[in-house]
This record gives sequence, C-alpha cells and structure tokens, in this order.
Amino acid sequence: MNISEESLKLHEEKQGKIEVISKVQVKDRQDLSLAYTPGVAEPCKKIHEDKEKAYTYTSKGNLVAVVTDGTAVLGLGDIGPEAAMPVMEGKAILFKEFASVDAFPICLATKDVDEIVETVKRIAPTFGGINLEDIGAPRCFEIEKRLKEELDIPVFHDDQHGTAIVVVAAVINSLKLVKKNFNEVTIVINGAGSAGIAIANMLLNMGPKDIILCDRKGILSESSTDNDPSKQEMTRKTNINKIRGSLATAMEKADIFIGVSAGNVVSEEMVKSMNENPIIFAMANPIPEILPDLAIRAGAKVVGSGRSDFPNQVNNVLAFPGIFRGALDVRAKDINEEMKLAAAYAIASIIEEDELKPDYVIPDAFDSRVAARVAEAVAKAAIETGIAKK
Amino acid sequence: MNISEESLKLHEEKQGKIEVISKVQVKDRQDLSLAYTPGVAEPCKKIHEDKEKAYTYTSKGNLVAVVTDGTAVLGLGDIGPEAAMPVMEGKAILFKEFASVDAFPICLATKDVDEIVETVKRIAPTFGGINLEDIGAPRCFEIEKRLKEELDIPVFHDDQHGTAIVVVAAVINSLKLVKKNFNEVTIVINGAGSAGIAIANMLLNMGPKDIILCDRKGILSESSTDNDPSKQEMTRKTNINKIRGSLATAMEKADIFIGVSAGNVVSEEMVKSMNENPIIFAMANPIPEILPDLAIRAGAKVVGSGRSDFPNQVNNVLAFPGIFRGALDVRAKDINEEMKLAAAYAIASIIEEDELKPDYVIPDAFDSRVAARVAEAVAKAAIETGIAKK
Repeated sequence: MNISEESLKLHEEKQGKIEVISKVQVKDRQDLSLAYTPGVAEPCKKIHEDKEKAYTYTSKGNLVAVVTDGTAVLGLGDIGPEAAMPVMEGKAILFKEFASVDAFPICLATKDVDEIVETVKRIAPTFGGINLEDIGAPRCFEIEKRLKEELDIPVFHDDQHGTAIVVVAAVINSLKLVKKNFNEVTIVINGAGSAGIAIANMLLNMGPKDIILCDRKGILSESSTDNDPSKQEMTRKTNINKIRGSLATAMEKADIFIGVSAGNVVSEEMVKSMNENPIIFAMANPIPEILPDLAIRAGAKVVGSGRSDFPNQVNNVLAFPGIFRGALDVRAKDINEEMKLAAAYAIASIIEEDELKPDYVIPDAFDSRVAARVAEAVAKAAIETGIAKK
Repeated sequence: MNISEESLKLHEEKQGKIEVISKVQVKDRQDLSLAYTPGVAEPCKKIHEDKEKAYTYTSKGNLVAVVTDGTAVLGLGDIGPEAAMPVMEGKAILFKEFASVDAFPICLATKDVDEIVETVKRIAPTFGGINLEDIGAPRCFEIEKRLKEELDIPVFHDDQHGTAIVVVAAVINSLKLVKKNFNEVTIVINGAGSAGIAIANMLLNMGPKDIILCDRKGILSESSTDNDPSKQEMTRKTNINKIRGSLATAMEKADIFIGVSAGNVVSEEMVKSMNENPIIFAMANPIPEILPDLAIRAGAKVVGSGRSDFPNQVNNVLAFPGIFRGALDVRAKDINEEMKLAAAYAIASIIEEDELKPDYVIPDAFDSRVAARVAEAVAKAAIETGIAKK
C-alpha cells in the first residue's frame, strides 16, 4: 500500500484527526456543580469585570484557530474549505504534539478579504492566537495585515513566515559553512507568492548585498503589467541593479538560490554560473527546482529541499509550534519581526558550529529540542520589544 | 470553601476546561507523512471531488460548534462573549462526557442578528452541527430560524428546545401519575422568553385543552404594546378563552404550572386555586417560583425544579447530548419537531410505569442510559421523516 492509500485508510478509520476533550472530571453532581452550573457563574463574573481574566479562567490563552479559506492548499490550489480540513486538522495535531498548543481548524466558506477579516474578528474572543493557513496570495497579505492591526492577539500566516523563518535559519547556518557574511551575498528567490515574498522580506532585514526576486516570467521588474501591490512593493526593495531577464540571468554570480516555485526549473548550468560555494534551497514539492544530487554535481556546497527524504528539509514544523508557544506563554499581543528573527536564530542554534555540515544545516523536524528553544527565544523577544502582557 | 470559590480555583488551576488532542499518532516521519504531508493530499482530493466525503475523512461529522453572543448567560444576562466562555466550555465537556460529541466553543464579538447568521454560515464547513447557546430572546428565534433554513447541518438552540424537551418528558410522566390526558389539561407557563415560548410550542403539539402564557406583566394578551413578533405569535396560538389578568388569574383551575421566570412568584394560594392534583415545574434558578415543600403543602401532586438538590430536576443535559449524537449518527440535515418529540418520549421512557413516583418523573442527570436512548430515538425519527443522509 502506498502513502496515499495508507493516508486515506487512516483518515477513514479515525474519521478525522482531532478530538475535543475535557481537562476536568465530570462524573457526578459535585463535579458538575463546579465545572458547570451553578459554580461556573463565578469565573463568568470575574471575566465580565475584567476581560483579561479570560486568560486565567478559560482555555483561551492556549487556543489557536487554524484559519483557512481553502484557496491555496498544499500544491492542490483552490479546493475549498471542506477539502482543506484534513490539512488544518493535521496542523492542529502538530501544534499539540510539538508545543502543547490546543489548535482548532476554522475552514471558511468565503474567499472575500473583508468577510474573512470580519469573521476572524468576530470569532476571536474564543482564541489566544490566529494561525492563517493556505490562503492564496495576494489576499493573504492584506488579510494578515488587517488582522494584525485590528486584533490584540498574535496573528501569523504560517505559509509566509513559518517558511521564511526556517529558510533564514538555514541560510544563517549555511553562510557559516561557506564563510560568507550576509552583506556580501546576492540571493535569488524564485517564486513571488506568499512564501517567496515573506522570505525576501525577512532576508532583507539581514542586510544582504542584494536580493533578486523572480516569478514565472523571470526577474520581477517594475515594468511588469500584472504585478499586484505586494510584487510592486518588492520591485522597489530588491534588485538594486535593475537587472532584467530570466531566472538564469538572475542566478549568474549569485551566492544563494531559494526556490519556492516549481519542479526542474534550475539546471546544472545555472548552478555552475553562480559564485563559488553556491547554496541551494530548492523547496518545490514533490519535485524540487533541482534534485540535490544534480545540484551537488554542479558544485553546490549546501543543498536543502522541502522533502523529508533528502537532507536539510525546510519544514515549517520547526517554527510555528514554538513560535505560538512562546507568544502565548507571555501573552504577546502580536508576533513581530524581532520574534520571527529570534525564532530563526533559535532554530539555527540547535546545530553547534562543530556539528555543522553541508548536509546538516537545518535540525531534524523531530528534534525535540527545537520547539522549546524557539518558544524561549520568541517569548524573550516579545518581552524585550514590549509587546508581552505577562 | 464554597462552590463559587472552588469553581474559581478549578478554572484557574486548569486554565479552562477543554483541550484539543490528536486521534492519531505523530511520533516519526512515517506518521507525519500519513497524517500530514504528503499523504494528507489524498483525503483533500477526495473531498474536493465530493464534499460529503468530509464526513468520511475529517472530524466534521462529530464536531459541534457551541455558539453564543454572550447576551443571555445563565442568570447573568449580557456579560459578553469572553465572559460566556466558561459556560460554553462547560457545555462542550458535557457533550463529550455524555455522548462522545466533540464540541467547541465559538464566542462571538457581535450581537447583530445578520452578523451572527453570516458568521455561523461562514464557519460551518468545519462543523457537523451548531448548538446555539445563551443568545437572548427574541434575537435567538430569528437566528435559529434563518440558520436552519440556510444550513444543511443540524442547528439547535438548546435554551429553547433542550429545556422544552425535558419539560415535555416530565409532563408526559406526570400526567401518567395523575391519570389525566393532554386533551383535558390547561397548562400555565410563566416566562415568555426563549425557553417559555419553546415549551409552549412543543406542548401545543401535544394537543392540550389550553395553554396560558404569562410574562412579567401577567397573561400575554394581544393588546400588550411591547410584544415582539414571537410573543405576538403566541397570543394567537394560546389562551383560547382570551382570559386577561395576572399569573394568579391564569392559574385558577389550571392543571399544570411551568415556571421559567423568577423566584417566589407563585404562592401557596395560587397552587390551591388549581385543579386537583396540580403539577408544578418551578425552574427559576437558583430560587424557584415556589419551593417544592410549599407547593406540596399546598396540594401539588408532582413538583420539579431546575435544581439538583431537589427531586425531578429539569436538566438540559438529559436532552442535548443524545439529540446531537442521534442527529450526527445518521447525518440528519436538521433537528425537526419529530426528533424533539422522540427525544422527549425517550427521556420519559427511562422510568418504567411501576417506577413512577411524584418525586421521580424525570430521570437523574447522570443516568447513563438516557443519552443512548435519546440518540437512538432521535436517529430513528430522522430516518422516518426522511432527513437522514445516512
């Protein structure tokens, strides 16, 4: 039986993957009188006096909504909210397994930006945080931006920032191996969707020599006619020499290639045209932009992908559980740039300098040290930037 | 330590009462590849082809949203969505403990009927059913009506129908004891909010001689100036002799008194003015309309209340867990009148005729036979009325 069939069988046998259970016992009248009426009136009254007490007396402080509109699910695209549910449930169980966060899927029957924003705001009283998931670009940018402004709980679009954080961690460690500094490297990113733009933005904060962002039509340029606002903004922040042309042109003399695009779009020749000791993260799934063995044959020093059967897997599970754990632990009002950067450094720090190797720049997805290390760093950054309420 | 303090301590120690856990194991790469990527793509594709497959491959079919706007919470009134959370969590754990239903609180930051309806519709893809809770009258009537029309999953306002179902069960058994038929009894209901109106509607279907509905100002009359549409409708369906006056007037020669109103509004004299063998369900909480011992002294044959420390407790937990269990088991599109009536008869049937006593017309809230019996009857009624999809 292959993975698809086995997965189908598992989902059918269990009828889904999540369960909502009680943390308290309800076996007799006495239990009922404390967990429910009449005793429950007391925590209600306390919260009515002071909303913040919801964090003391309810599950809110550990509940994260995993919100999707089902428009950009895995590589499957716009399959709708019902069909997105297995992924959202999967996300929820990873939150629980890796960081003891209670996450719950909210699959929305609307694709409208205003409606998504207002719906999430209306259900927010239940939750301590909002994880946006598999919402297509460019709508995801506006939805996240508005929710971050209008809610006082952390909002985080994992497809953007989760991926970006792990990539930045990988780049930090890779640069140590090839002994280059951020300010001397040119980074090519292929794919200008939610992940590509988030990676570019986060790497820009690291002060690279340049970043060149490409989409299906080649290097992103101000003259492109179909640029949405998020792409337009990137043309202003990247490609300082205003190079035009194809991905191949972009990669000449570049130091790092980051792919969040499609399979087989990078050739060995393109890798050979890069600066010495090229770093390649080819994260298209299931077929990477270039297969690791080909990239290495063409001279790549470090190669990573999105796949668990190759070394250096860029897996969001390294980031999102610990990030929310840390944010919830100190009741952060937001997840800001400093917290994301702290998460990236925490992930990178798991691998000591003397352990670093070209095929080990990213910790294993199941490395049990990661979530706790990330949570601690994120909580500290929240406190230092003054957005922790606890 | 009293119940209030103990409850507060329990809620604080546990930080709320619910937890979202995984039904599948995620301990290694193999687990991850089945529960999450890449295997999870397969159930997603199946559901994309046929939405109904969400019931096969996801938790939807066993998930119930416990939805409130926090406007009519316990006896506390409009305390807001955050402060309603302890009650909603309590409800969720009762669903799980009594009927293995996975219920999740959704506390809404809006009181607007249109906004509540559209928000619930938008989040509906996650859920197999909607339990409305502690939403004030008359808004609750329109919200429930519209959601029932517009959604193809069961929608049930527990404050209305849960209470009504248990009261009808209690009345069925009480009438056996006093050897009266429905068509010869006059029923007085004090309280014309969501529960009172739902009880009246359900009892009307049993064919009583008459029902007289009272609110704070006495017998509900067409000439009242502040009647909302739901009260107006009731004036047309009840009080066939167009009696006017106070609750005391209504109770003269009545057979059954049902109170969902306020403490101490019924005197011994009022009970004495009723027909022989009066039946009294005085459910105001914590102080009933009349205390059981006073009612009995005044001649009441059967007395029930909303309190667990008196006999014959009218407790919704006898109804809602089994009702949703039954509806979910056969994937009913709705919870219709036949299903509610089936639930009432199922609850009543737990007590055999030879066990019936004035202080035992309602099964104990913890009688473990009830939920299963109710579920079976409700599922059967759904199938017989053609609204079961399974």
